[in-house]
Amino acid sequence: MNGNSIGKALTFTCFGESHGALIGAIIDGCPAGLPLKEEDVQIELNKRRPGFTEISTPRKEEDRVEIVSGVYKGYTTGAPICMIVRNIDVKSKPYKTIMVKPRPGHADYTAKIKYGGYNDPRGGGRFSGRITVAYVMAGAVAKKLLNLIGVEVLAHTVQVGNIRVESKISYEDIRRNVYSNPVRCAVPEVAEKMRKEILRVSREGDSVGGIVEGIALNVPAGLGEPIFDSLDSDIAKMLFNIPAVKGVEFGAGFQAASMKGSEANDQYTIVDGKVATITNNAGGILGGISNGMPIKVRVAFKPTPSIAKKQRTVNLESMKEEDIKIVGRHDPCIVPRAVPVVEACLALVLADHALRSNRIPRIIKIR
Amino acid sequence: MNGNSIGKALTFTCFGESHGALIGAIIDGCPAGLPLKEEDVQIELNKRRPGFTEISTPRKEEDRVEIVSGVYKGYTTGAPICMIVRNIDVKSKPYKTIMVKPRPGHADYTAKIKYGGYNDPRGGGRFSGRITVAYVMAGAVAKKLLNLIGVEVLAHTVQVGNIRVESKISYEDIRRNVYSNPVRCAVPEVAEKMRKEILRVSREGDSVGGIVEGIALNVPAGLGEPIFDSLDSDIAKMLFNIPAVKGVEFGAGFQAASMKGSEANDQYTIVDGKVATITNNAGGILGGISNGMPIKVRVAFKPTPSIAKKQRTVNLESMKEEDIKIVGRHDPCIVPRAVPVVEACLALVLADHALRSNRIPRIIKIR
Amino acid sequence: MNGNSIGKALTFTCFGESHGALIGAIIDGCPAGLPLKEEDVQIELNKRRPGFTEISTPRKEEDRVEIVSGVYKGYTTGAPICMIVRNIDVKSKPYKTIMVKPRPGHADYTAKIKYGGYNDPRGGGRFSGRITVAYVMAGAVAKKLLNLIGVEVLAHTVQVGNIRVESKISYEDIRRNVYSNPVRCAVPEVAEKMRKEILRVSREGDSVGGIVEGIALNVPAGLGEPIFDSLDSDIAKMLFNIPAVKGVEFGAGFQAASMKGSEANDQYTIVDGKVATITNNAGGILGGISNGMPIKVRVAFKPTPSIAKKQRTVNLESMKEEDIKIVGRHDPCIVPRAVPVVEACLALVLADHALRSNRIPRIIKIR
Amino acid sequence: MNGNSIGKALTFTCFGESHGALIGAIIDGCPAGLPLKEEDVQIELNKRRPGFTEISTPRKEEDRVEIVSGVYKGYTTGAPICMIVRNIDVKSKPYKTIMVKPRPGHADYTAKIKYGGYNDPRGGGRFSGRITVAYVMAGAVAKKLLNLIGVEVLAHTVQVGNIRVESKISYEDIRRNVYSNPVRCAVPEVAEKMRKEILRVSREGDSVGGIVEGIALNVPAGLGEPIFDSLDSDIAKMLFNIPAVKGVEFGAGFQAASMKGSEANDQYTIVDGKVATITNNAGGILGGISNGMPIKVRVAFKPTPSIAKKQRTVNLESMKEEDIKIVGRHDPCIVPRAVPVVEACLALVLADHALRSNRIPRIIKIR
Repeated sequence: MNGNSIGKALTFTCFGESHGALIGAIIDGCPAGLPLKEEDVQIELNKRRPGFTEISTPRKEEDRVEIVSGVYKGYTTGAPICMIVRNIDVKSKPYKTIMVKPRPGHADYTAKIKYGGYNDPRGGGRFSGRITVAYVMAGAVAKKLLNLIGVEVLAHTVQVGNIRVESKISYEDIRRNVYSNPVRCAVPEVAEKMRKEILRVSREGDSVGGIVEGIALNVPAGLGEPIFDSLDSDIAKMLFNIPAVKGVEFGAGFQAASMKGSEANDQYTIVDGKVATITNNAGGILGGISNGMPIKVRVAFKPTPSIAKKQRTVNLESMKEEDIKIVGRHDPCIVPRAVPVVEACLALVLADHALRSNRIPRIIKIR
Repeated sequence: MNGNSIGKALTFTCFGESHGALIGAIIDGCPAGLPLKEEDVQIELNKRRPGFTEISTPRKEEDRVEIVSGVYKGYTTGAPICMIVRNIDVKSKPYKTIMVKPRPGHADYTAKIKYGGYNDPRGGGRFSGRITVAYVMAGAVAKKLLNLIGVEVLAHTVQVGNIRVESKISYEDIRRNVYSNPVRCAVPEVAEKMRKEILRVSREGDSVGGIVEGIALNVPAGLGEPIFDSLDSDIAKMLFNIPAVKGVEFGAGFQAASMKGSEANDQYTIVDGKVATITNNAGGILGGISNGMPIKVRVAFKPTPSIAKKQRTVNLESMKEEDIKIVGRHDPCIVPRAVPVVEACLALVLADHALRSNRIPRIIKIR
Repeated sequence: MNGNSIGKALTFTCFGESHGALIGAIIDGCPAGLPLKEEDVQIELNKRRPGFTEISTPRKEEDRVEIVSGVYKGYTTGAPICMIVRNIDVKSKPYKTIMVKPRPGHADYTAKIKYGGYNDPRGGGRFSGRITVAYVMAGAVAKKLLNLIGVEVLAHTVQVGNIRVESKISYEDIRRNVYSNPVRCAVPEVAEKMRKEILRVSREGDSVGGIVEGIALNVPAGLGEPIFDSLDSDIAKMLFNIPAVKGVEFGAGFQAASMKGSEANDQYTIVDGKVATITNNAGGILGGISNGMPIKVRVAFKPTPSIAKKQRTVNLESMKEEDIKIVGRHDPCIVPRAVPVVEACLALVLADHALRSNRIPRIIKIR
Repeated sequence: MNGNSIGKALTFTCFGESHGALIGAIIDGCPAGLPLKEEDVQIELNKRRPGFTEISTPRKEEDRVEIVSGVYKGYTTGAPICMIVRNIDVKSKPYKTIMVKPRPGHADYTAKIKYGGYNDPRGGGRFSGRITVAYVMAGAVAKKLLNLIGVEVLAHTVQVGNIRVESKISYEDIRRNVYSNPVRCAVPEVAEKMRKEILRVSREGDSVGGIVEGIALNVPAGLGEPIFDSLDSDIAKMLFNIPAVKGVEFGAGFQAASMKGSEANDQYTIVDGKVATITNNAGGILGGISNGMPIKVRVAFKPTPSIAKKQRTVNLESMKEEDIKIVGRHDPCIVPRAVPVVEACLALVLADHALRSNRIPRIIKIR
């Protein structure tokens, strides 16, 4: 199987280009009988749309989903569910020169090598953040499946540049606040600082990176397939497929490197008659299998590579160094819009594993 | 396909248990005509063996490889290559109670949930670090394939607890020094500090974590399959399958979160008539595809969970909290022995992608 | 991966329902640089359209293909190629009762069991012969790839009911005659007899089966991956996915059962300086690998299950036996329209294996 | 994934060569908690051993199975189950020349092309019927899984050369008689005729083909994954992987081509309060999904290609035609020994699909 499909029990296939006719997602393996409406998917897509014009691309993406197969009379049929979003507000002119002068930090150069120059360069083609529209559509179906077994997936911005969420926050904070501010941060005061930082950097013609935390609550213990389909390796693989991700860590993550066993080990206890751990340095996964504690993963995003500042590049025809200043419509910080994408990725992997472990039946009976 | 196989063009299947009859690796998809001797594999296995008894498990693992299929008259035949290492020095007694009293930080509890208590608990069974013997055997074949196209794979310890390599080191330092000290560090003085730190922590009945850096040199631009089989996502997936890994980052990694685009972007230049980048914050991968610069990945390991110190756990029969003190033979720091495993994982993914991209022919003609 | 995708190097994903919005095909893994126009696909789709109204369904299927991704400026980009055909002339009424009274010989009953009654029953939903529109679209791309290495794929009707092609026919007969008569038979006189037989049976309110032979010429020796991805097993698998297929045989096929080794073995000879076989009882495949001789496969189709004649069935609600007479628009013999589908299936498997064996480059340079 | 593994929920990996160290099978995806002893597998292997020396190879194959992983205290653990049979009675001399003078009907020529001459030629290497030892080992595990849900798998010889079973036979005949005569035929008198035919042909230095019928009883309705993992396509694929198979048909098979819809359609009825069909021309599969009726598949085998009679071949070095007379130990008719292999293949696919449909739990509780 090729690289545009992922997931073994719940298979997600992604197609379409940034400035092509559409972005499409196919979900294969969804049980029959799941109620599914276009609104269910639209709600998730709307989270991905620019929050405040001032901190994100002026590209107007209405992103209306159409479900064109796999649903009949409001229920999934067991057949592949194809969802599409047509690309409307497309301005391809600014991308003309990138095949000759690759933009630093972008995939222009590697895509050209890979595809011999045949790749669609408009808006980054397949290498645009816009393909995450498909992730979010697919994730919407995954979330509905996870709902059936009570699993909740959250994500929030915990860092933008050097602005960090330092205080302890509750899941309730995340639920309440994330989508009510443009940077998708759970702490309103920090959100405001992040917003200002993005604006400041943007005015300099620059961009900035950040960190998103993904959380899954109520995950039953026992998800994850040893050894190469471990839950953490599958989540990491999916997250690294979001453009601009440079790091993924679970629980204590890189901090664990400087910890002792007596600090890092999550000791067991009983909570409400059930096995739990006192700490959660494991981030909910032990030996690649969920242990019933919240799954916690942190995802590092690099700054948007498209910046107005002058940069050095190479003219691939003359093989001479040249300067480049990137015009076009770009988010100065991709992190806020990545939040629902992290949710979608986490949901997709968890739903896949819930199906693989038979936690979700093949025919859903909830009429 | 199930979770004990990985890789699309070069498929690695892993089997066997820590205290079972053997550990086995099968490589399917290796081109015919590759010269392969047991010594080629043994050299890699020897790197994984305890360096100094004082800082690692007293378990005596001779780990002699036998190639039992897929090689004829010293050359690979194109058929599956099965390599085995018999388990010899096995003492299973200390593991008797872990099915009832799961060890904190181990997979005892999650494995029991997953397999209903049928899993082989001896030495951790499938969840033991010992299964990485198979990774190293498979990696040895991958390295020989990569040799054909000049790719070199390195790894070294860059952190143990709070002891870090801070100075800049050359690839030559890594080649020369890593396997001449027990902690697999490229800087002899730092290596000595790390060794002392491990001994110190060990004497306290504790353990410590660390970070390994993996590097691949001479990787041709163009490896990596969009979008879900991107090179970084495949490397990350493979690395998270090493027991105890909690984080993976490429290039600038989590540092990229606090960088600006103008700092993080690797600007292009010409070196020796070829396209190169001035910096390497991308770690050699852009848009999931190698860009010809060195691939750099950092892997965070948690401290070995088996410690002699008293810990809190739960008796799964009485559902009461109890104390546990772990006896048995364990490495106080897994990091040094993980170094050749990181090499193997990196080599496996790169060889898989080199084959997928047709950089290595299906029949090798080097007689 | 789920069942709506097939092929390892060239992956074909099929979606859409008979009376849904569209039928879709995605090809993933197609090399970049292949010239591809909608006309290339339309030509193949047109072969599948009813030849003569009198012997096939009066359903008017214009079947206009749209390529909505993966092609840029007339060349494939290396990204997934999505092709769709919108369903236009849809009359869903006659299918209302089949969820309660399953039609003998159809998938109504098994689909209901499989999907708990949630499957789309309109026009057979996913179980309609109409999904082969997707096979033909995908096959059109495969044929263009095979063209690059000179492989030609043919198919023709060799039996309808008891009317058989008995004489020896040339490849030139097939090329010239098949698509110039409504039954897709290479011998005009036999074609006329077949046409009359279909009309006769149709007037009785009945249907009839037949046999299609698929042929691939110029296939290089060496295609096929041992052992479970052998060329014949992959071709057989693909062909059994055409609705109504009940048997597949290669070369001498079932005749080989009553032959002796001295008769069945294809002895070797030299033709034009190249190794060839005197006979071709193997149908071009030995040990699962092509031997350079023409690949020959025969595919048995059962009669169309939808017939006007009264049949016995069961009312699944009352669990009582009842009669059924099927109305709706159906081909009295599916065989003629299956001919281009057999071509498509054969082409898809051969192109997949040609790519797996690196016979087709990953970037096509024919500008 | 490569071609030496098959099956999505129950994955079977095959390795080893005819005259190498061993033949091995790995089953991945087997639920934990299945009682499994070496005797369970040995019983199946014994069925594959030569029945009467006079009609089969004098090669003495004791074929003792060893289970080397995945089983602990008599139960499967959920980890990969590796089973091996060491090759003992190996005489490799007679195979020396086949790399230069390929045997007609064998894979010698195609294997050489495929692997550039690096393939292990001894005893046919990977292309020997001996690899079906692995199929039988894997099938033994599959049968035990199917037992849990009451599915029974049978096979019997229905044709050898021109000797056919013409009378109607009961399942009880098959159960009682098949393994009590050397040709594995359910009708003793026909079995005797077949035995004599094989002896007669063998004395002529020739060989003969035949047909095996595989049957699965008690298969629940609903197995099979649309559309490319349909039950019949998966069974066909697996069967075509048995060396020497040239045709596969289900139910009426090729006969269906000359039937009318009113004859071929299996009309529904009620038997014991359950839906059944009056006839079984579908062979138990409709739309790729089991319908609850017995699954019936017929498999055509060509005559053993290794014959003593003089044949024409080509010397690949001189590129001149030459004669060949094959010495070595070969079955004059492979059909009898293929009977347990057909059983194994059928069992493997059914168990895979039973797992995919969640008919068998992931943890088996039958202590």
